[in-house]
Amino acid sequence: MHIAPFPQTNEWKDDGMREDISRHLLQEMNSRRPAVHCLTNTVVQALTANMLLAVGAIPSMSSDIAEVAHFTKSANALLVNIGTLDGDLKNSIKAAIGAARDHNIPWIFDPVFIDRSEPRAAYAMELLSLGPALIRGNRGEIGLLGGNPADLARKTGAIVAMTGVTDIVTDGSTEITLEGGHELMSLVTGIGCAGTALLGACLAIVPAEERLQAVAAGLSLLGEAGEKAAAEATGPGSFAALILDKIYQISQSSLQERKENE
Amino acid sequence: MHIAPFPQTNEWKDDGMREDISRHLLQEMNSRRPAVHCLTNTVVQALTANMLLAVGAIPSMSSDIAEVAHFTKSANALLVNIGTLDGDLKNSIKAAIGAARDHNIPWIFDPVFIDRSEPRAAYAMELLSLGPALIRGNRGEIGLLGGNPADLARKTGAIVAMTGVTDIVTDGSTEITLEGGHELMSLVTGIGCAGTALLGACLAIVPAEERLQAVAAGLSLLGEAGEKAAAEATGPGSFAALILDKIYQISQSSLQERKENE
Amino acid sequence: MHIAPFPQTNEWKDDGMREDISRHLLQEMNSRRPAVHCLTNTVVQALTANMLLAVGAIPSMSSDIAEVAHFTKSANALLVNIGTLDGDLKNSIKAAIGAARDHNIPWIFDPVFIDRSEPRAAYAMELLSLGPALIRGNRGEIGLLGGNPADLARKTGAIVAMTGVTDIVTDGSTEITLEGGHELMSLVTGIGCAGTALLGACLAIVPAEERLQAVAAGLSLLGEAGEKAAAEATGPGSFAALILDKIYQISQSSLQERKENE
Repeated sequence: MHIAPFPQTNEWKDDGMREDISRHLLQEMNSRRPAVHCLTNTVVQALTANMLLAVGAIPSMSSDIAEVAHFTKSANALLVNIGTLDGDLKNSIKAAIGAARDHNIPWIFDPVFIDRSEPRAAYAMELLSLGPALIRGNRGEIGLLGGNPADLARKTGAIVAMTGVTDIVTDGSTEITLEGGHELMSLVTGIGCAGTALLGACLAIVPAEERLQAVAAGLSLLGEAGEKAAAEATGPGSFAALILDKIYQISQSSLQERKENE
Repeated sequence: MHIAPFPQTNEWKDDGMREDISRHLLQEMNSRRPAVHCLTNTVVQALTANMLLAVGAIPSMSSDIAEVAHFTKSANALLVNIGTLDGDLKNSIKAAIGAARDHNIPWIFDPVFIDRSEPRAAYAMELLSLGPALIRGNRGEIGLLGGNPADLARKTGAIVAMTGVTDIVTDGSTEITLEGGHELMSLVTGIGCAGTALLGACLAIVPAEERLQAVAAGLSLLGEAGEKAAAEATGPGSFAALILDKIYQISQSSLQERKENE
Repeated sequence: MHIAPFPQTNEWKDDGMREDISRHLLQEMNSRRPAVHCLTNTVVQALTANMLLAVGAIPSMSSDIAEVAHFTKSANALLVNIGTLDGDLKNSIKAAIGAARDHNIPWIFDPVFIDRSEPRAAYAMELLSLGPALIRGNRGEIGLLGGNPADLARKTGAIVAMTGVTDIVTDGSTEITLEGGHELMSLVTGIGCAGTALLGACLAIVPAEERLQAVAAGLSLLGEAGEKAAAEATGPGSFAALILDKIYQISQSSLQERKENE
């Protein structure tokens, strides 16, 4: 697919361009149904799978060293999230990344909590050299990996998404700033991690030169769903269910629009 | 317990027989409170445990090789779901199945995603020779294991449940067809896996000759709950919560009916 | 922080003392934002993290032997829950407890299901000698570890919380009895386990001499939230979301009260 260039500032918020681009992406997602193999932490596996399913993507999550390459090579993107680790998983992650590289499948890196553990930070630095298509982290994590987002993007060749109250997406030359979302998103474990998987599904369906746009559109969709969910939620428990509902509703309505325009 | 023969076609849908049989099963479940030991993938553990608890069954989930036989022999059914695997889990699964066989405890096999990985398919074929009481899979998985449901049932001696838009349950000679459910069931990770655990709880409380009926009644209950949940849900997030509520409500109302009839 | 002595009987329920003390604790929690490292079973990780986030605490969950000491020493409390075990996790638990002891960080023990497996019971007895600050279990688990709560508290020096229809909290000399909660709490997997993590967050912010009070206040909060959630839930699925909402609402309203009193 080809998507329009994503506006670099929030000005587009007013003219509906954000929504148009993320709708286009969602329509493609539902046609293509990309498979995303997720080596992610056990805390957030269910939410991650459910967020992928809500947009029509197909999650798988096995981390067995004997089969992780099989799953990866039949997927359209690979997610690597190091929120919970063990020795076996570290080996499986490397095998999966190897398979992704061999088959030109983009892999996405979520360096969770590298600021809490030195061995983890060292392991993350090793992975960085293996060519992720996207690195998504908070300010502390991105800072530890590469100073600032643009430097990290230039150093690695990856798109870098630094998320927080404001999200910044950059390929090292163009930077897109996104406001939005809701603070309840930080009170449900795994919204960020599942969001990274969603970005992986976005990368799975665009050519390399449109990755920056696709990541921005994916984050924009997540923020929009978060705002809509927060408007109805009475706390983080109902919010966790509602954000999936909102992503699904946005996805379904984009399909409906396409049908009506045909 | 003894349950009435489950009607082979949807005709019973009209005359309430389906509901009568699944109510009877639920009443027994609440009296007997079967323990189901679940060696299942980490993605769906919480939903699986919650679905068992909703009908009065007792889940446990340890996969430690040192204790998996202890858990299995004190349970009334064993669930083996290979959605996420690793080397340790593969050993634990075999130890647990060994304990189940030694103590005449039915074990249930959910061969998740065997069409995505050759090593996994080979491992699944090994397990098949260990005498599962029930095999539950989708069309692709059942096809890979044994061609069609009836052939697979005859080859293994197991009840085979092939689920999808239409569910087929067979022991190799009698086949029951079930329509129902809702497409949202496929958009929440683990509804199928948790449903297989629910079928395990059903098998735990009936004699071997009534397994076909019990599996059909369990699938029917799941489909009924799915339809009721979908009628109130605004997307897959609220649906995941509501299907548990509906299963619980059906279970509680069956207890209420029994009290009123006493 | 210092909290008022928690009333030993339910008399306080009438005079609002229970609520005052748990509000005070929640206000402190939001100021201090304790980090709780959780080595807990994979079934309940998401709910556990979400319950901690709902009160402003910061969960982490890695069990990698290479980094578990790093996480523990930068946390304010350590939770050890043995609901799902394997050989690696058993080693990691010991390493984490070692780090907690070295840095005077309280560790909390939840001896799940020790009545279902002899090797697990033996492992639990080993951990008991490593000085937990709190042991939380049901009647069967506490009985197996030490006869009755007061004896177990005196034997180990820990606060003991035996939960069930009635909760008993004791340091071996003073005993606090708590009524409340709702039976739906036992129909959602991990409410007890997540509740133990919440108690860990409470211990993280009080001096050793106030642990008995803090545990009682934490259990009281959980029971209050359970009652409020049950009043709105239509079954265990919606209850699981609502109990997080209620904990969050109570926490937020305690912050609001503080602001208004300043």
